[in-house]
Amino acid sequence: MEKWFTEKHSDTINFSILVTKTLYSSQTKFQKLEVFENPELGKFFTLDDYVMITEKDEFIYHDMIVHVPMAVHPKAENILVIGAGDGGTVRELCRYQGVKHIDMVEIDEEVVTVCKQYFPNSTSGLYDPRVSLFFMDGLAFVRERKNTYDLIIVDSTDPFSVGEGLFTRSFYKDCFEALKEDGILVNQHESPFYAHYQKNMLRAHQRIKETFPIAEVYQAFIPTYASGHWLFGFASKKYDPIKDADFKRWNALGLKTKYYNPQLHVGSFALPNYVKTLLNKE
Amino acid sequence: MEKWFTEKHSDTINFSILVTKTLYSSQTKFQKLEVFENPELGKFFTLDDYVMITEKDEFIYHDMIVHVPMAVHPKAENILVIGAGDGGTVRELCRYQGVKHIDMVEIDEEVVTVCKQYFPNSTSGLYDPRVSLFFMDGLAFVRERKNTYDLIIVDSTDPFSVGEGLFTRSFYKDCFEALKEDGILVNQHESPFYAHYQKNMLRAHQRIKETFPIAEVYQAFIPTYASGHWLFGFASKKYDPIKDADFKRWNALGLKTKYYNPQLHVGSFALPNYVKTLLNKE
Repeated sequence: MEKWFTEKHSDTINFSILVTKTLYSSQTKFQKLEVFENPELGKFFTLDDYVMITEKDEFIYHDMIVHVPMAVHPKAENILVIGAGDGGTVRELCRYQGVKHIDMVEIDEEVVTVCKQYFPNSTSGLYDPRVSLFFMDGLAFVRERKNTYDLIIVDSTDPFSVGEGLFTRSFYKDCFEALKEDGILVNQHESPFYAHYQKNMLRAHQRIKETFPIAEVYQAFIPTYASGHWLFGFASKKYDPIKDADFKRWNALGLKTKYYNPQLHVGSFALPNYVKTLLNKE
Repeated sequence: MEKWFTEKHSDTINFSILVTKTLYSSQTKFQKLEVFENPELGKFFTLDDYVMITEKDEFIYHDMIVHVPMAVHPKAENILVIGAGDGGTVRELCRYQGVKHIDMVEIDEEVVTVCKQYFPNSTSGLYDPRVSLFFMDGLAFVRERKNTYDLIIVDSTDPFSVGEGLFTRSFYKDCFEALKEDGILVNQHESPFYAHYQKNMLRAHQRIKETFPIAEVYQAFIPTYASGHWLFGFASKKYDPIKDADFKRWNALGLKTKYYNPQLHVGSFALPNYVKTLLNKE
């Protein structure tokens, strides 16, 4: 009998992936964690029945959550990553020689252990000597840091599960204080399309907007996330995501990317009218 | 028992929509045609088990297939639309007072009849006196026209069913000849992500590139199409889709759009590296 993994994109819309092999299945201390294989997507892992990464398209999410702020901040040396147990965000950050230190705070150690086993590509950066791994609650971690980071990346699960506390006002305020005076925060921002996601996206954006003087939104095509239209929040104390992007500097680094490029960086902030209306309405 | 409509995004990936009502179901002379209802997407119709439009997101596809070329061509008066039985493309074109005449050629009359009944919004333009409807094969129609149109929009079904002939070399050559010396062709171009779609997209693009001196590709977020990352081909004898876009003129028209805007027009041509690599590889 065929086995299918199904993610509910909404109450009445299902996205189903044929599972040719189940590689891992466990109830961790925090969530249900499974690793599957599919002929088109390669290996993929899920938390509480939501797709986190697939081998085929993880590069899109990780390119966009990392290279956009890195092309803007003139000297991102000290970075905090919250969540991101699959390692892809840290892998991309480690490609920058200018990065001196990365704190990565993941609440669920089992996610990292399992990803190291099944996703050697995405976890490759976790062995970098510049990376310190903390297995604890990101909320508590960030609360204790003041004026420390150039960049904070919130690479959380969806706000309807373990990631919930990461979408609150006090958390974004703590991030603001943990950032230096020219710091940038990037937040995975959910999607604008299906009603349930839209609600979470607007809530996150509103709270970030209340906290940071600059709060913009950009987008990427992520086929295995609900609706394929995924948003990121770019919040900052000082830098504008387009005017302050230094593509000459970024190009000079010679990084090869499969999704990101400077023209697309600019284009990713060109939102559809219906999304702009939603964001202004708030 | 619940009823679900399922579209195969690939052999091993299914997209399923809960059907709360089946409004129409028929085997037309050409294809299987069904109209369903879903709480999140509203009414939607399918041909041979592929979603054509949903009330919730049809505006995205129709904005992008129409307003992009209309912002570029300085005087699009005589237009040919091939396929497009749901009427949405013609509806958007009819908002331009400068448009003098639209020939719409749809092979399957039953699609138009059924859409008029169930999708009064998308079919509203079909009653415009500037529109001539032809129920025949678009290939035969375009073959007979020379130096006639300012703009041809190929709004076809997927190339694996009735739309197949619309993805051939000789068809694009006939379109070239049916266009005036500064004519533009826009082609629904499928998607770059899943292997099967990618193959069709590359084939269409390659054939258009062989025929037209200018052949670019742009993209839109269409959640109910496979992968959500949809491409359009912009082919032209003379006009560049960005350099020749006249946003001052377009803005002066005062058209309200839910997806399209000039900034997004430019951004939609900023393709991810992996898509650019695919297109150049050919």
